[in-house]
Amino acid sequence: MYILVLKIRLIFMSKSQPPLDLNETRVSSQNVFDGELLHVYQDQVCMPDGKIKVREYIAHPGAVVIIPLLDNGEIVLERQHRYPLHRDFFELPAGKIDSGEDPLRCAERELLEETGYHAESWRYLATLHPCIGYSDEKLIYYLAKELVFQGAKLDEGEHLEVFTLTLPTALEWIREGRITDNKTVSGLFWAEKALRNEW
Amino acid sequence: MYILVLKIRLIFMSKSQPPLDLNETRVSSQNVFDGELLHVYQDQVCMPDGKIKVREYIAHPGAVVIIPLLDNGEIVLERQHRYPLHRDFFELPAGKIDSGEDPLRCAERELLEETGYHAESWRYLATLHPCIGYSDEKLIYYLAKELVFQGAKLDEGEHLEVFTLTLPTALEWIREGRITDNKTVSGLFWAEKALRNEW
Repeated sequence: MYILVLKIRLIFMSKSQPPLDLNETRVSSQNVFDGELLHVYQDQVCMPDGKIKVREYIAHPGAVVIIPLLDNGEIVLERQHRYPLHRDFFELPAGKIDSGEDPLRCAERELLEETGYHAESWRYLATLHPCIGYSDEKLIYYLAKELVFQGAKLDEGEHLEVFTLTLPTALEWIREGRITDNKTVSGLFWAEKALRNEW
Repeated sequence: MYILVLKIRLIFMSKSQPPLDLNETRVSSQNVFDGELLHVYQDQVCMPDGKIKVREYIAHPGAVVIIPLLDNGEIVLERQHRYPLHRDFFELPAGKIDSGEDPLRCAERELLEETGYHAESWRYLATLHPCIGYSDEKLIYYLAKELVFQGAKLDEGEHLEVFTLTLPTALEWIREGRITDNKTVSGLFWAEKALRNEW
């Protein structure tokens, strides 16, 4: 009897809540802008209701984000000017993945280039998507520990300032609206859980 | 004597750590793609070292993100197909701000259109920037409570599925990598602090 009831419930659930097919299928694709940084596509797609709609998006190689934790418990951050918003931002070190590059190698490279630190201990935390409405970018997060300073090697034309904050202060800067870069916000929230050994 | 030492220290600090000027100044600007969704600009900018560099970015009207909390403690979420990544995502309700629209009015409108809920109680949480490298988009977050179901009014051609999760389950979905949309990740982390009355 119990099995029968269970079966009936399962059938009822699957009949009453069929998962909607939300898929959109490519009909055609056009590279409408191919710049130095941005590669923009405009596709015709077939919607679930059969109608044709235009989708526009950025093709992005993906990036790494590093949470560099010093032995004294402070986190290494950067101040960088971000031209699209015409102001400086406080950010975790991050950088675009080169073609064919392993994400962890990229994280090691970017951390050293931008902050001058080499990390002995690396832990993968998460892969997040910053901008799903109009970019295929993914962000791969790592916690970097056992840091040794070796000296920064900034790329030609790269300008930034490195500084450190304790995690409680960094979280306070988020609460106050001084840190608003979302890759940094979610990275610091994640670090809080990771460093409490909750996650 | 104490005052003297303090003054010397302040002078020393300000001399040893002058804040770097990281400003980039516009030289020229060109609208290189004007699509149905994306408006792309390519600017020539003058860097802090006087060199000229190209900056490319999306001009975006800004968006609202809503954390809708039901009286039973569950959060209203959506499943939506995101064509740039060719898969479905679990997301907080969100939407672009219409030209001249008040962000809170936009949040009320989007919550009703997409989920069918009207909220009696609204609390502003934060303004975050999802994509500072190549977009001027800002995300304005609200916590919406005292929800009353009135029926959804999806835009023509808008396809999504509404469901609910408790906050602990939603956070578990982040930890497991089932929720990876970064606007949703930071929104749920923020909600955890707001609902504990920490923030």
